[in-house]
Amino acid sequence: MENRYSRNRLYISAQEQEVIKNVPIILGGAGIGSVIAECALRLGFENITIIDGDQVEESNINRQNYTFEDITKDKIKALENRLKSINENANIKVHNCFLTEENVELFILGHKIAINALDFTSDVPLLFDKICQKNEIPVLHPYNLGWGGLVTVICPTGLSLEVLEKETNKFTELDVVEYATGYSKFWGTPHAWIDEIVDKYKKENGSLPPPQLSIASWILAGICTHLLFNIATEKEYKKFPEFYLSTILNN
Amino acid sequence: MENRYSRNRLYISAQEQEVIKNVPIILGGAGIGSVIAECALRLGFENITIIDGDQVEESNINRQNYTFEDITKDKIKALENRLKSINENANIKVHNCFLTEENVELFILGHKIAINALDFTSDVPLLFDKICQKNEIPVLHPYNLGWGGLVTVICPTGLSLEVLEKETNKFTELDVVEYATGYSKFWGTPHAWIDEIVDKYKKENGSLPPPQLSIASWILAGICTHLLFNIATEKEYKKFPEFYLSTILNN
Repeated sequence: MENRYSRNRLYISAQEQEVIKNVPIILGGAGIGSVIAECALRLGFENITIIDGDQVEESNINRQNYTFEDITKDKIKALENRLKSINENANIKVHNCFLTEENVELFILGHKIAINALDFTSDVPLLFDKICQKNEIPVLHPYNLGWGGLVTVICPTGLSLEVLEKETNKFTELDVVEYATGYSKFWGTPHAWIDEIVDKYKKENGSLPPPQLSIASWILAGICTHLLFNIATEKEYKKFPEFYLSTILNN
Repeated sequence: MENRYSRNRLYISAQEQEVIKNVPIILGGAGIGSVIAECALRLGFENITIIDGDQVEESNINRQNYTFEDITKDKIKALENRLKSINENANIKVHNCFLTEENVELFILGHKIAINALDFTSDVPLLFDKICQKNEIPVLHPYNLGWGGLVTVICPTGLSLEVLEKETNKFTELDVVEYATGYSKFWGTPHAWIDEIVDKYKKENGSLPPPQLSIASWILAGICTHLLFNIATEKEYKKFPEFYLSTILNN
């Protein structure tokens, strides 16, 4: 095992380290994606494609992997520099554009695992999943709930998030969050704090983007990196409609 | 609320943001401490003192907050640069030395919350806790278990880790880990994977430092930042002998 990864020993075999080094991962979105990418690269995922056409804003700094100097710069360029500073030999491919109905399939093809960290402001995130399912690529969906992280994995032969779509409204991240709290409540572990936040957020009538904390970003990066490892090395993991909800709040 | 923290809204009030900005935190050790510091700073903890006399090694990169260029440099200087790049106005104080029986009390005084992220290779980590207890400073103890993070908080009026000390051996991190798995097993949620790793590690006879992954580092940073918030704003949290053990592995 390379010296860089010597402290992964006992947890990760030399063979597994080689597998994760080579498995091509695609990351749609460099918001929460920016934190996941660093955690995954450090573990040994050296083959990462990232797509985002956004620029860094001051309000990103509270939870995304950017510095004050990065503000106004292209996210993808700033993130590429950060990742290359950690491992200059890694195969980091970045595309400074937004995913569209026209280009999304071209970008996805050739990858083995996907992370859907896109804003649900268009139909592209659901199309992203659909194309991944068709091409047998599992898709991680991380959601920042401030005090905790929610992750679900859409699988090639499993259900898609569209089953949560309500007839009256366009599908948004809120549908996933409300599904998860409803499910938790039903199974005896209610998360009242999530319901409260959802309530407050709804009262803002969509006038502001959802609030998010570094706490959930960092927890999500750890969980998503673990899921990438389990998928790449063919270990078990929960699939949608099951999910992971991690927080130290217990009500 | 400052624009930098605008996305903390709904979760964190303007008053709470001000409290965490000013509460002085001391971090003993810039290993896992380097990841915690960044997550905490992004949330809004702007008053952080860090002490470590170590230099960055290539084998740190798999899980600590350093770049390839940082190798051979003083950890504390590299970390100061990173934290200042995120918020140059934050009050980041670094001390490029190791804590000793002689200096540890001087460094601790004046702080309100402590993080004990020191290597258990001397009596200093337990002395660190003792001085914090005497001065009414809660102490977070994060432990990197590869696939998951373990955190316990030593409180001024509570038990200390010395209750876990065995007569035959010097106290080490392993005692905390074995206590936590024994406790989990007793309460019906066994973590066989931790027992397995502890077993493998013991067979190495201390010839190598403990293995650690980025997955646990990132999860621990999220949990410790949440605990810092709860302590600073006087919310509830579990205290030793209770603990937080976070992982997506469920056996």
